Amino acid sequence: MLDEYDIIKLITGRFGKLPESYLPIGDDVALIPPGRDGESVVLKCDMLVAKTDVPPGMSWKMAARKAVAMCVSDFAAKGVRPTAFMVSLGMQRGTSEAKVLELASGLLEASREWGVKLVGGDTSEAGDLIIDCSMTGFAKKIVGRGGARPGEYVVTSGPFGQTSAGLKILMDGAKAEPSFRKEAVSSVCMPKPKLGLGLALSRYLSSSIDSSDGLAISLHTISEMSGVGMRLTKLPFVKGLEEFASRNSYSAEELALYGGEEYEIVGTVKKSRIQAAKSKASSLGFELRVIGETVLPGNSGAVALADGRKVRKDGWVHFRSKG
Amino acid sequence: MLDEYDIIKLITGRFGKLPESYLPIGDDVALIPPGRDGESVVLKCDMLVAKTDVPPGMSWKMAARKAVAMCVSDFAAKGVRPTAFMVSLGMQRGTSEAKVLELASGLLEASREWGVKLVGGDTSEAGDLIIDCSMTGFAKKIVGRGGARPGEYVVTSGPFGQTSAGLKILMDGAKAEPSFRKEAVSSVCMPKPKLGLGLALSRYLSSSIDSSDGLAISLHTISEMSGVGMRLTKLPFVKGLEEFASRNSYSAEELALYGGEEYEIVGTVKKSRIQAAKSKASSLGFELRVIGETVLPGNSGAVALADGRKVRKDGWVHFRSKG
Repeated sequence: MLDEYDIIKLITGRFGKLPESYLPIGDDVALIPPGRDGESVVLKCDMLVAKTDVPPGMSWKMAARKAVAMCVSDFAAKGVRPTAFMVSLGMQRGTSEAKVLELASGLLEASREWGVKLVGGDTSEAGDLIIDCSMTGFAKKIVGRGGARPGEYVVTSGPFGQTSAGLKILMDGAKAEPSFRKEAVSSVCMPKPKLGLGLALSRYLSSSIDSSDGLAISLHTISEMSGVGMRLTKLPFVKGLEEFASRNSYSAEELALYGGEEYEIVGTVKKSRIQAAKSKASSLGFELRVIGETVLPGNSGAVALADGRKVRKDGWVHFRSKG
Repeated sequence: MLDEYDIIKLITGRFGKLPESYLPIGDDVALIPPGRDGESVVLKCDMLVAKTDVPPGMSWKMAARKAVAMCVSDFAAKGVRPTAFMVSLGMQRGTSEAKVLELASGLLEASREWGVKLVGGDTSEAGDLIIDCSMTGFAKKIVGRGGARPGEYVVTSGPFGQTSAGLKILMDGAKAEPSFRKEAVSSVCMPKPKLGLGLALSRYLSSSIDSSDGLAISLHTISEMSGVGMRLTKLPFVKGLEEFASRNSYSAEELALYGGEEYEIVGTVKKSRIQAAKSKASSLGFELRVIGETVLPGNSGAVALADGRKVRKDGWVHFRSKG
């Protein structure tokens, strides 16, 4: 049976040596070189628990990659390039070598995909697979959640509803057209945080948030922290969402607003900057979608649809949502 | 039933505001001000899982404090003052407000005790209480595990055997004299990492390690990473250990060498520096114990007792030791 040392060896064995300015993995602490002059340290931790975060059909490799992706997505929304990450792993006694190697592959894939170095970690015996990723980077400043002002555009870095649809397919057996199904399931198992886009867009965003708790919560959070209202003009439905919704008797609006796990950037851009922001996104192969405008607070609820209906502050909330 | 937002509010509500140079808790990432010129970032994560790390009699408040203490102890052994920490919390659906407030109290106590700021975290639904602490500090350099040379003293920052005894009392009902029992149980539930001592001793230590996996493993790790052997002259038994061992038919040697969770600093000091190091420790109210010497590798096993018997590379190993 593998013990702690075997597990660490299996994982670190998949990774090359760290550069000289780092401390090799295997001391009491990890050490990464300082940022540039005056840069603050940016930190994020995000815990993935198999029981609630890993649907059927998702491998340990995918789960490990996703745990890292969850942190990368927060860095993307803040316009900060992550430098390094650590992982605290909990797993059951008797976990096989094959499973640990799957985990290692997922971590390695994430490390390469987003250029972020594994610098340390911890392993513990637990009743369930737990992957807690903590990530570090450097920045002079970040795009906060509280910078929106009335009269700006509300934007998203991509469409919504795909991950909710993917979860319905994986968990509830919802039916879908094959290519929609493939994309939707992939968005759950292989999320694609928009790091490059987030870094490029940060100069245009007056506020932003990682949308992993869902579009509605993300909008409400910016609204509350910035002290603005929002009037949405066009919900960013992913292509095929309405057909999928009608086929399975779901509401496309519910799927897009209240699902979660999309890992898109939701933010606000001054009207005078919107063309430049859209062009920048477009030059990177992405479409920056304008979904509404910020308004003075206090009119008909903080976040409302074009027809005046309120958007609920609801979405993927741990301990509230169905795991 | 409490949801994620309620839990975060209950915990952060116990803490005061962070200084201006930090980002208030509640954005996608945490942000801490840069270290001094040329200082690297020091990082550590350590996961506490109730099932294996929380014995009967240990409250959630104690568990939360201990999760932070585990990281502080690593910083102490490296001679680095920690600045900030994040916590990823996993807990069962339906966890009561009282339990969450206990957790918050433990985190607050730790924050005050070691002067380390809570800057962020994450909460997830899990089958068991999981507290993953990730800690950050700054240092130009650290005391590594590989710096010992032959002909130095092997030292510890305190006695060993107390935590093993405490665990035997809590888990197996071992009998003990009342004051020994009290101290032993306290060492399990309220560990005291030697941060001040570690910071003061770092200039004297040629190598060091946090002893939380046990004395024997700690010695073997320094031995392997430094390429030296060790000959132990006097095991650092805690007062009363031999009486406790004989009363319960344990071996004091086994308890002191192979127990784990002591959170002491184990290291090596050049002979010419030992008096200064001992005086420094003494001035802070601690006794730096010389327990042996480093020798050329290859003589009768890496780590051996005075009578030539080998010290096994064994101790608290996750997935191997009894939880």
